[in-house]
Amino acid sequence: MAKREKSKRLQVVITEEQDSLLIKTAYQLSNPERLISKSEVVRLGIQLLNRAVESGELDPELLESLDQS
Amino acid sequence: MAKREKSKRLQVVITEEQDSLLIKTAYQLSNPERLISKSEVVRLGIQLLNRAVESGELDPELLESLDQS
Repeated sequence: MAKREKSKRLQVVITEEQDSLLIKTAYQLSNPERLISKSEVVRLGIQLLNRAVESGELDPELLESLDQS
Repeated sequence: MAKREKSKRLQVVITEEQDSLLIKTAYQLSNPERLISKSEVVRLGIQLLNRAVESGELDPELLESLDQS
């Protein structure tokens, strides 16, 4: 993260299943030259979700999964 | 979140810009019957990103944005 930007600490409660998903995704995005952290996955997820919402491309099925969590 | 599931506390450092994006996205996903929290947006983002990675649909441009953050 660029140092000039102000940063905020965000606390999120997730299930163990989501934590596993997070680790798995971080691993899948990593390569021998670049390790992706769980924080980076979360930041990327925020960006991805924002894009999906802005462009109206959000899978409605994904929204429904919110009600179960 | 279902009470039977074990939960974990996740701490993520985000920029103020990403925090604004998070609030904006939460608002866009909310409706008069359902308020979406920032935590829910993060959980949804994790799911969305995992799906994109699993299906190989991840926008490469988004991955590049990681290097700037």
